[in-house]
Amino acid sequence: MQTVIPNWLIQRAFLTPQRPAVDDGWQKKTFGELHESVVKRARQLAGIGVRQGDIIAVLMRNSIAMVETIHALHYIGAIALLQNIRLTSHELVWQLNDSGAVCVIADEKLADLVKSDIRVVTINELAALPETDVEFQSHYHFDDVATIMYTSGTTGKPKGVLQTYGNHWWSAIGSALNLGLHENDCWLAAVPLFHISGLSIMMRSVIYGMGMYVMPSFDAQKANDLIMDGKVTIMSVVTAMLQKMLADLGERRYPETFRCMLLGGGPAPKPLLEACKEKGIPVYQTYGMTETASQIVTLAPEYSLTKLGSAGKPLFPAQLRIEKDGQPARPYEAGEIVVKGPNVTKGYLHREEATKEAIRDGWFYTGDIGYVDEDGFLYVLDRRSDLIISGGENVYPAEVEAVLLSHEAVEEAGVTGIDDETWGQVPCAFVKQKSGYSVTAEQLKQFCQERLAKYKVPKQIYFVDQLPRNASQKLLRRQLKSLIPNDDNGA
Amino acid sequence: MQTVIPNWLIQRAFLTPQRPAVDDGWQKKTFGELHESVVKRARQLAGIGVRQGDIIAVLMRNSIAMVETIHALHYIGAIALLQNIRLTSHELVWQLNDSGAVCVIADEKLADLVKSDIRVVTINELAALPETDVEFQSHYHFDDVATIMYTSGTTGKPKGVLQTYGNHWWSAIGSALNLGLHENDCWLAAVPLFHISGLSIMMRSVIYGMGMYVMPSFDAQKANDLIMDGKVTIMSVVTAMLQKMLADLGERRYPETFRCMLLGGGPAPKPLLEACKEKGIPVYQTYGMTETASQIVTLAPEYSLTKLGSAGKPLFPAQLRIEKDGQPARPYEAGEIVVKGPNVTKGYLHREEATKEAIRDGWFYTGDIGYVDEDGFLYVLDRRSDLIISGGENVYPAEVEAVLLSHEAVEEAGVTGIDDETWGQVPCAFVKQKSGYSVTAEQLKQFCQERLAKYKVPKQIYFVDQLPRNASQKLLRRQLKSLIPNDDNGA
Repeated sequence: MQTVIPNWLIQRAFLTPQRPAVDDGWQKKTFGELHESVVKRARQLAGIGVRQGDIIAVLMRNSIAMVETIHALHYIGAIALLQNIRLTSHELVWQLNDSGAVCVIADEKLADLVKSDIRVVTINELAALPETDVEFQSHYHFDDVATIMYTSGTTGKPKGVLQTYGNHWWSAIGSALNLGLHENDCWLAAVPLFHISGLSIMMRSVIYGMGMYVMPSFDAQKANDLIMDGKVTIMSVVTAMLQKMLADLGERRYPETFRCMLLGGGPAPKPLLEACKEKGIPVYQTYGMTETASQIVTLAPEYSLTKLGSAGKPLFPAQLRIEKDGQPARPYEAGEIVVKGPNVTKGYLHREEATKEAIRDGWFYTGDIGYVDEDGFLYVLDRRSDLIISGGENVYPAEVEAVLLSHEAVEEAGVTGIDDETWGQVPCAFVKQKSGYSVTAEQLKQFCQERLAKYKVPKQIYFVDQLPRNASQKLLRRQLKSLIPNDDNGA
Repeated sequence: MQTVIPNWLIQRAFLTPQRPAVDDGWQKKTFGELHESVVKRARQLAGIGVRQGDIIAVLMRNSIAMVETIHALHYIGAIALLQNIRLTSHELVWQLNDSGAVCVIADEKLADLVKSDIRVVTINELAALPETDVEFQSHYHFDDVATIMYTSGTTGKPKGVLQTYGNHWWSAIGSALNLGLHENDCWLAAVPLFHISGLSIMMRSVIYGMGMYVMPSFDAQKANDLIMDGKVTIMSVVTAMLQKMLADLGERRYPETFRCMLLGGGPAPKPLLEACKEKGIPVYQTYGMTETASQIVTLAPEYSLTKLGSAGKPLFPAQLRIEKDGQPARPYEAGEIVVKGPNVTKGYLHREEATKEAIRDGWFYTGDIGYVDEDGFLYVLDRRSDLIISGGENVYPAEVEAVLLSHEAVEEAGVTGIDDETWGQVPCAFVKQKSGYSVTAEQLKQFCQERLAKYKVPKQIYFVDQLPRNASQKLLRRQLKSLIPNDDNGA
């Protein structure tokens, strides 16, 4: 039997209308007020012809208006296609055409990005439009699609990941059963709402009746201030964000009100975790993706050093296994990470073949490589597409990066494979030095040789000013090669 | 799509094996240890022929063994029929025959109660039996029946309420979204596990990864000690239990670790709530029943006095409405309480007609009478069967009792209707006086006349030593009449 429960924001506004819902530093709204704004916005969306089942693109920077727009689309029963504001016009239009979106709701400054025949309505235009009567979705059906996000996947064209109401619900519940649920919680959304890391905060907010603080774009100092002032109790970050926050934090320590730093986007370097431990920052490492509606595996802080580098165990409603050559792998044997649970997508939009390929018997094949230890803790080795195969040996860039990052002079590191006549591929590193430190490529290679099998040691090391990262600050390893100077063979 | 997630205790034992699971004062077990005991017990149950889909009666007093037995039945995929140990042999056997139970697992001292051909295995006998290989239910399907409890309902024979895994799950999640979920929570089960109030604690324990303290039978002093020592943080009670605890507590105050006194079983008297407020006891009033797998409406403590007598608002996944003559009632208009949600039973065992009668369009007709105020807070007036109709006016016993209980000399009060030649029925009260106080029937009538419409004032008041209550300490109004002395016409 499909689960059907009341429309989340409507129910929340009925149950706890006075509780704080959203805050962006300029404006605050309770759930009652948020609902009222959403009603208005939904009636305006109906006025421009948005109907139940329509796919509507949202091209916005984090804001209360963006939160309201997504809820308003759900009030009508429309599907929100969340677009990355860093995409090129070509990429945006490709998604619009592929999805069959009928309209784009865009920030004023982003509207011009969409060079297409598709109607673009800016958020200011929308706010000035008349309202039209429309029947709201009084209930959410868990099998219905709520949102779509495109992911590049390992190869080929981007695919639209279908995220149902059920996926979002179960993700939120799985997280609550793991992290707990406190009356005064407020979750800082400094990651983009167009990524699942940010959107899932918005979903948790209405399901839990929890406040969220919406930050237009990540600002380490501002984030630290919010934590120091006790205004937020939980925050989602990736490694690069956390490093910046630690640098800004200096000698200060977070107050006890801050109870969870949810760290996603890949294995964290040991010195970072140790610095957090030192400062009493409760880091929860996590593993998840667009297809799992955010976290599916999370490590509690009591294990952050004893299970160093682990992403933890599955959330309560979920499961994982490692598969190698079609067989379950043994503990410590690396293979593909395969996951299952009610938070896992039902597939890709208009991609029947890709869906069948990715989801078999209810298990989602992530394309990522990892292993589990004898206690069932997951270690993510790498994204499959980043795997470097050198002389028949597998080299996982994250492993090499972790070693580089443990060097006192290294602030950031990225590793990728470059072609090599002898070995097929060899690892190549890109390093940003810490200010005040100086190190040579030879010294770093020596450092690596002491810690890694020979074939894993970078053959070339480039010093750079910054590494390519996406809007969530995740390292884009595939863009590293473009940093190689044409007239330089590396050191 | 039906929800399917991993077997709760198996998953819990995998995720958090070291966390405390159960404690009865003599023995403690972690989730890992509980799982091991359950595996053994399940293999022994398989040895006596218990198979997937079988209905197995459990006739036990609260204990860790009872917790293990219920889990073990679920490991095999059998359905646990939970029987009230206060029932007569006749009533127990009636349930066994009606349900088609194939076997009874009973405490040593209770086994003789079952006078039937059905096989009775005592818990000690079971523990001595050899183990048999059996395939465990690795996943729980939310539409499958997990447990059955018989309720008398308003009229006729008792009916077996089917409680699915989904019902229990959603009840636990709805409660967590309302009460929050803290890392150090431990819930005291002093109410019977054969009632939904107790069983739901066991379900929350494995779903949340939360400890539960199992008390064989309610003991006010022991319960207070557990709270004072910080060993339990949440407790489920009914009014009579809470009154005894307050009397025992004296001048002491609970520590801050105690965060929720979940008060069910009917509207609470104002003096009790005020005494709790005075002592800083966080009372959450709640309304629920066997058919809703425990709570469906709960009042947060901040409203316990401003919304005096209210049971609160629905849990997040649930809804309620008041229906009068087949139409939705207006605010403050009394009618039948009708509820909906994924925690609501799918019906009664072998009672197609009763199921159709009770559940229409997914809404469950509780048979209880109540109203909602303009903010949507529910006020439960009475169980329909207890309704007194006097001269065409409705008299709700709970309302009259609440007035009596607000008198300083009254410790307990019960009201029912007795036949009257003029008015059809008139209310009649049964009162237990507080020790050290003295009051006459005339004084109480006068007290009521000042607070109630004339037709609601009890025509007769009897002083008694105790009121009839069931194992959950709920007042049994239908048994009140038996307290009327034959040679007495009341005062």
